[in-house]
Amino acid sequence: MSQFLNYAIQLAKMVEGQTGTNPPVGAVVVKQGRIVGIGAHLQKGDKHAEVQALDMAGEQAQGGSIYVSLEPCTHYGSTPPCINKIISAGIQKVVYAVKDTTLKTHGDDVLQQSGIQVEFRHQPEAESLYRDFFITKRQSVPKVTVKVSCSLDGKQATDEAQSKWITNKAVKKDVFHLRHDHDAVLTGRGTLKEDNPQYTTRIEDGKHPIRVILSKSGQIDFNLDIFQNQSEPIWVYTENSKLKSDIENVEINCLSNCSIENILKDLHEKGIGRLLVEAGPTVTSEFLQSNYTNELILYYAPKIIGGSGNYQFFQTENIFDLSEVPHFEIVNSQMIEQNIKLTLRKK
Amino acid sequence: MSQFLNYAIQLAKMVEGQTGTNPPVGAVVVKQGRIVGIGAHLQKGDKHAEVQALDMAGEQAQGGSIYVSLEPCTHYGSTPPCINKIISAGIQKVVYAVKDTTLKTHGDDVLQQSGIQVEFRHQPEAESLYRDFFITKRQSVPKVTVKVSCSLDGKQATDEAQSKWITNKAVKKDVFHLRHDHDAVLTGRGTLKEDNPQYTTRIEDGKHPIRVILSKSGQIDFNLDIFQNQSEPIWVYTENSKLKSDIENVEINCLSNCSIENILKDLHEKGIGRLLVEAGPTVTSEFLQSNYTNELILYYAPKIIGGSGNYQFFQTENIFDLSEVPHFEIVNSQMIEQNIKLTLRKK
Repeated sequence: MSQFLNYAIQLAKMVEGQTGTNPPVGAVVVKQGRIVGIGAHLQKGDKHAEVQALDMAGEQAQGGSIYVSLEPCTHYGSTPPCINKIISAGIQKVVYAVKDTTLKTHGDDVLQQSGIQVEFRHQPEAESLYRDFFITKRQSVPKVTVKVSCSLDGKQATDEAQSKWITNKAVKKDVFHLRHDHDAVLTGRGTLKEDNPQYTTRIEDGKHPIRVILSKSGQIDFNLDIFQNQSEPIWVYTENSKLKSDIENVEINCLSNCSIENILKDLHEKGIGRLLVEAGPTVTSEFLQSNYTNELILYYAPKIIGGSGNYQFFQTENIFDLSEVPHFEIVNSQMIEQNIKLTLRKK
Repeated sequence: MSQFLNYAIQLAKMVEGQTGTNPPVGAVVVKQGRIVGIGAHLQKGDKHAEVQALDMAGEQAQGGSIYVSLEPCTHYGSTPPCINKIISAGIQKVVYAVKDTTLKTHGDDVLQQSGIQVEFRHQPEAESLYRDFFITKRQSVPKVTVKVSCSLDGKQATDEAQSKWITNKAVKKDVFHLRHDHDAVLTGRGTLKEDNPQYTTRIEDGKHPIRVILSKSGQIDFNLDIFQNQSEPIWVYTENSKLKSDIENVEINCLSNCSIENILKDLHEKGIGRLLVEAGPTVTSEFLQSNYTNELILYYAPKIIGGSGNYQFFQTENIFDLSEVPHFEIVNSQMIEQNIKLTLRKK
């Protein structure tokens, strides 16, 4: 693969998780064998990667090539179409790694009519950056990652709800990075009551996710730790129209039906592009049975907890036939200091 | 390590080989857990990485952190000192991965007096990016990489000078990347006459190196292929004061003594920061015996050529004691489609 296309993909990866419902994109402008501009899409509403890189290149872009991780856009969104900027900058060649299947019109023809050589050079590595963006944009829902920390026998806690700490400190740090990479973390009322968590990101220059609490009944104790930390908004989803809160950063969203789908569509409308689910068996199982789980991350501690089946992370009312239980593809397996991290995608 | 410091180092690596006698540097500005600016030093005389990143960040740099692969500069060179820009941008924290041992004054105190938190966080991975820059800047010579393609028995050609092609096509492509990453390629008159090479870079959007020819006698045939390609300058070093050429891109440099040291110092003065030596046994052996070879790259084809010792890549007049022969450290070993690439550093 071209090293410059590879650099564009590297730049996209640097901003993964900070572009909300927009895709992470990187761009590199090259003139006479030398990089003259680099760019990345830093935030929804901000300049696109191509524009950042072309601005850095200035007049040097004239006659140069631009390498982009994703097909340049052709539409007026929060910013004007990138293909206009590419044409006016005098670029001679455009190479991109992934076709944007969500574009209504494609720009290759327009660029070629302006005498620009355009090449779509498929990169499987970049494909995985955008796979979920395409799916979720069409459905108008965030990408959903369900995270579970458990014992080798699949328990999130003992029968008596003791769960601190099953996995090790290194896993905790890894989870901070997961939170940093997501716009919001969702949990249920049960976990909130039992674990009293804060869902913050304790890494250097990390960003805290927006915290989303699902409580159909609306029986929430506003004295819990999570409500003391007012750095980021807390959005509560409930079916209880009487639920109120005076806390400044708490927003109550009352839906007539708090289904996963309704909550996800509302979150996407509010700008959430990536949602991390960190919850107990009830909410976790609801997500894992839905069609809206893109990724499952399992952290296993090398322990077996036993007991009588409470706090198994996957619990269902129905008994499925073995051929119908949810199947996954293992994307990655990693040792984290004597704990195992499995990254999986639902098949 | 911090992911942001890691990104700064990635950015530095992207521009390695295009900054001449300046070091490759990358920078990332972070505000509230979000990247708001990225930058790299694109060319000597152009903005430093910190300035590129701070310019992209604009007002968002206020109160943010900057991560830089190399200690920010304190001196007026081709551009004003970066620490001034960091202070005026309102940055609160500076983290850098490598101390710049060539700076006359260090900026940590000045930054701290402005209320900025400064942290030198040593990164061995970044260290290797700058090791040769520090050495060669102090000596005012380019970093020298000697490249040799040979058989398993160390021959660059048969006794009858047949050398096309010992190594495979994949190696040839790898050599194009080496040329792209160096400012200039140096060879001797003998290789020029026997191989008639062009020393160009045939990769997409690659840059051709400046070509340097060493010929003490000045007996050069200006009809060779290399003189037909006039895209990049050709600099000839000779002790023959009568040597002249009318070819536009050919510059004759007559030195009273064409020693390796004299040539390297002159090249550094002309802006060459990285020199690749691709030559036959005479010039190669002269460089390998000198103190100016930073890196040796050996491509081995799985063949044995034999003969009577002509074209062994290392030939010396003296016979060294075994304890005194040049020793190397193996930095990397790599298979390139049935050829082996060894990267070594002189001990």
